[in-house]
Amino acid sequence: MQIRILATGGTFDKEYNELNGELFFKDTHLADMLRLGRSHLEIAVETLMMIDSLQMTADHRARILARCLEVPEQHVVVTHGTDTMAETAGVLGPVITGKTVVLTGAMVPYTFGSSDGIFNLGTALAFAQVLPAGVYVAMNGSYFPWHSVRKNRIKGVFESV
Amino acid sequence: MQIRILATGGTFDKEYNELNGELFFKDTHLADMLRLGRSHLEIAVETLMMIDSLQMTADHRARILARCLEVPEQHVVVTHGTDTMAETAGVLGPVITGKTVVLTGAMVPYTFGSSDGIFNLGTALAFAQVLPAGVYVAMNGSYFPWHSVRKNRIKGVFESV
Amino acid sequence: MQIRILATGGTFDKEYNELNGELFFKDTHLADMLRLGRSHLEIAVETLMMIDSLQMTADHRARILARCLEVPEQHVVVTHGTDTMAETAGVLGPVITGKTVVLTGAMVPYTFGSSDGIFNLGTALAFAQVLPAGVYVAMNGSYFPWHSVRKNRIKGVFESV
Amino acid sequence: MQIRILATGGTFDKEYNELNGELFFKDTHLADMLRLGRSHLEIAVETLMMIDSLQMTADHRARILARCLEVPEQHVVVTHGTDTMAETAGVLGPVITGKTVVLTGAMVPYTFGSSDGIFNLGTALAFAQVLPAGVYVAMNGSYFPWHSVRKNRIKGVFESV
Repeated sequence: MQIRILATGGTFDKEYNELNGELFFKDTHLADMLRLGRSHLEIAVETLMMIDSLQMTADHRARILARCLEVPEQHVVVTHGTDTMAETAGVLGPVITGKTVVLTGAMVPYTFGSSDGIFNLGTALAFAQVLPAGVYVAMNGSYFPWHSVRKNRIKGVFESV
Repeated sequence: MQIRILATGGTFDKEYNELNGELFFKDTHLADMLRLGRSHLEIAVETLMMIDSLQMTADHRARILARCLEVPEQHVVVTHGTDTMAETAGVLGPVITGKTVVLTGAMVPYTFGSSDGIFNLGTALAFAQVLPAGVYVAMNGSYFPWHSVRKNRIKGVFESV
Repeated sequence: MQIRILATGGTFDKEYNELNGELFFKDTHLADMLRLGRSHLEIAVETLMMIDSLQMTADHRARILARCLEVPEQHVVVTHGTDTMAETAGVLGPVITGKTVVLTGAMVPYTFGSSDGIFNLGTALAFAQVLPAGVYVAMNGSYFPWHSVRKNRIKGVFESV
Repeated sequence: MQIRILATGGTFDKEYNELNGELFFKDTHLADMLRLGRSHLEIAVETLMMIDSLQMTADHRARILARCLEVPEQHVVVTHGTDTMAETAGVLGPVITGKTVVLTGAMVPYTFGSSDGIFNLGTALAFAQVLPAGVYVAMNGSYFPWHSVRKNRIKGVFESV
């Protein structure tokens, strides 16, 4: 079973620019993370975009949807900023059939030594392998069907609606 | 859905004794790891033993089996040394019915800043939630049914047999 | 020999707010850093302020100067943002006599798993113990007398002028 | 001012072999550590040996002494296991004149995410630049002249004798 990971950016992949003190995107760290996790899954990593999910437009979401439909794999993980992850899931959910697509992200950048990114990546890859076809969000150890998930921005956690 | 984690030790929970340069066990780091992973799952962590899996005897395995059967949860994760993880799975597999039990571990101690422990914990918790009843090993991003898994000690990875 | 550390903030002590993705100050991490460095020096840590050095005014610098003069220790380390560290050194330098005062900081926050903060802290504490009375900046492994140092903001390093 | 670092091994440079769970030596991590510390010192790193200091013989110490004398630099840092660091200092001390030689090490391997190695490296490089000619041990934030230092193995700290 091959899995496709579509990287779109988000906190997951942010880095610290030590010259100006700002956060920015360079490349995805997914290859590093998979190596550190000793993953031996067959995974094709593809960077679709590298942006903050607050800056995602309908066009960006259309591209993510199109790629989910185009790729040959039946099992897809989308790494995504947490702020609008539920919104993107809501775009993918009604259209995608016959594939298991799992969106995940992180509250703290991988490069800041946090562990929620690699924990979430682990859960997302597992859910993508075994959940029935459909679109899901994998955060905080749980999976949420696309039509019943939101981010609680006060608490910084995902919850069912 | 509540999940029970039974900690038995293994590389996962080893620490470095800076006075004598040896590895040892103190307490499990599961609470820290779940906190860093921003897990919001309902989890009961229970330390059954804190040993190297090379020192596990039939008695130890009988205790693990007994606890898997006794606990009220239908979803159980067992953290375990990798060297004899497949052997313990082979003890649990033929007896446990109606529960999903997932064994996992790490190649590098959590306290050494490695990431395979927290990645594996993520996959194990996800598999424990969605795989059908049975006993599995979750390592290297994959799950393996108890009757068809071994550790390749040369490569340091788990593979199907 | 007792050493006083006066914490003023700077990148050294910044943290990541995972709810809004911004950097902020809470408490200094100096106690943690000294513990991880296995320091057995007699050190009194005192937080004077917790601000970005770009927001430092003449009043802030006057307070730092006053505290350097008031404290009983002859050996003082000031942790400080790098952007205006040389400017503060220029305020302290002409006034302080009979004490060794060393300013240091970091390019990457300690909480981001960087190592320049703890490396710089090591050099600053060593320089504060053995350099003759005077005011210095300790960055990039070197010490610079207060009257001949500037931050090269393009390269992100300190250099002699 | 150029500084020579002579690496001899010790806990500083130990790594974890995830296949057999043992600690071993591969290469020194000094280049990584200097890069993370944003050092801009002129430093020549040279690996003399890569061993545990409990396995150091009189021959090994004679090699270290010979190299300290031969290298053109007046400022030398020797990275060394902590267990017999004081003994090696006792071999170098009576012979070396006109150079500042500072021995340092770590209680926890750099690769285990510890911070005492990089903290100690910072102090050692600073002491090597400014202490008068002589042989010293730099540990726990302090420097100790070669003739009055021992490791307290119960506490894991260096102290004056």
